[in-house]
Amino acid sequence: MEDNKYQFSLEIAVRDYELDSEGIVNNAIYQHYLEHARHQFLCHVGYSFAKMESEGLTPVVSRVEINYKSSLRSGDVAVCKLWLERKGIRFVFHQDIFNKESGALAVQAIVTSVVVKNDWPTRGEKLAEFFKDYL
Amino acid sequence: MEDNKYQFSLEIAVRDYELDSEGIVNNAIYQHYLEHARHQFLCHVGYSFAKMESEGLTPVVSRVEINYKSSLRSGDVAVCKLWLERKGIRFVFHQDIFNKESGALAVQAIVTSVVVKNDWPTRGEKLAEFFKDYL
Amino acid sequence: MEDNKYQFSLEIAVRDYELDSEGIVNNAIYQHYLEHARHQFLCHVGYSFAKMESEGLTPVVSRVEINYKSSLRSGDVAVCKLWLERKGIRFVFHQDIFNKESGALAVQAIVTSVVVKNDWPTRGEKLAEFFKDYL
Amino acid sequence: MEDNKYQFSLEIAVRDYELDSEGIVNNAIYQHYLEHARHQFLCHVGYSFAKMESEGLTPVVSRVEINYKSSLRSGDVAVCKLWLERKGIRFVFHQDIFNKESGALAVQAIVTSVVVKNDWPTRGEKLAEFFKDYL
Repeated sequence: MEDNKYQFSLEIAVRDYELDSEGIVNNAIYQHYLEHARHQFLCHVGYSFAKMESEGLTPVVSRVEINYKSSLRSGDVAVCKLWLERKGIRFVFHQDIFNKESGALAVQAIVTSVVVKNDWPTRGEKLAEFFKDYL
Repeated sequence: MEDNKYQFSLEIAVRDYELDSEGIVNNAIYQHYLEHARHQFLCHVGYSFAKMESEGLTPVVSRVEINYKSSLRSGDVAVCKLWLERKGIRFVFHQDIFNKESGALAVQAIVTSVVVKNDWPTRGEKLAEFFKDYL
Repeated sequence: MEDNKYQFSLEIAVRDYELDSEGIVNNAIYQHYLEHARHQFLCHVGYSFAKMESEGLTPVVSRVEINYKSSLRSGDVAVCKLWLERKGIRFVFHQDIFNKESGALAVQAIVTSVVVKNDWPTRGEKLAEFFKDYL
Repeated sequence: MEDNKYQFSLEIAVRDYELDSEGIVNNAIYQHYLEHARHQFLCHVGYSFAKMESEGLTPVVSRVEINYKSSLRSGDVAVCKLWLERKGIRFVFHQDIFNKESGALAVQAIVTSVVVKNDWPTRGEKLAEFFKDYL
């Protein structure tokens, strides 16, 4: 798909402690990058994870699908792009991570989340309101 | 499916630094648990990740699918169970994590990996030999 | 000093994702080991970090001193030993980590903490009560 | 001391996964920030950790002293400042971390390292050459 499908982009420089013994960014670290990109997207629209928590709303990830395409290494910068889709009560984040210098796709992910209140899934109306320009 | 489909089981006690601000184990940490269980399974059959690396063989995760079912918290013990399937050159680990005390399913995951040598995927014959009783 | 100065011991197996690009356990990971050992010591005396938090008491680390003596690697087991000293309102944990197989000292640490309530340091009387056999 | 003692400064935005169950940045994470600041300082002078490793030189941390002064939270930006001192074969990094918005001191640290080659400490001449304007 064309590049303009993305709605938000965040650059994250690889930190050396994120590398594993093979000298590449450890698989689990990409989940950190993906989460950080989503949380910054939330800040970008004027909301935040901390604010949601303080209101008793918790965005909970229910499913993650990650395809690892190429590795990031020391000195690389991850460009984390995403676009958002709403499916019923679910917020589905389509997130791709690229190597800034080479442009190579590093990771292709789909992250599904719902907003939980008092341990029950909600329709996520308040979150949808913040994201209304993107849905 | 019945419990006896599993081929390996590892208990991992939750550590408090693995909790996030909601007091539950952070999503990315489960990838650490899943990886550690696979690596211990490898040790169980007499091989190890370090040994593979020293032989120039690198098991590379190409895809991860994780369904989050319930949360683990401080004091919980994760029981990480898995069974292995071979699909062409791919080794597919079916990994479920349970809450030891309640028995509740916490995470259901499918992790696909291939063995890479000199940056090229291999047929993984040596790894398959170690896992022969499980394939 | 002699081995019997220690009051608590916990074994922690190195996990491969804790290694950095040099194939050794990353420096920051030892703080995780040290914290986990302290928290397990707390469980051992019938209390827990989660319980303290639920009572509005927060053990806060005010100072850490770590001397790195030798590295831990894939397959190693860290033996985390500690003894406790009280200095005024401070709880001072003397924590040493050994390589289980070789017996070599890996890390020598002194961790100072105080119990905070409503953002103010307290005399930590309740914590001291749980630790009374060790002070 | 006055602010101009510092030789390098790096801003690191707190990521939500770095928070622990109290909603503050976990103690061990500051060691990640400190390491990342040192490694970026190394890049700043035209060298890098990866390059050192490729030359068989390994900067090894032998001692860390961290005083925790105030906490960082979601949304905060850590300003990591440092100045360098050479003591014999040791490189001593004096590293302070501030809360960008409030200016409050969060962490005060002294990190001592030596350059190791083939498992032996060296005089670190090459590293000193890169840092010559700062020593």
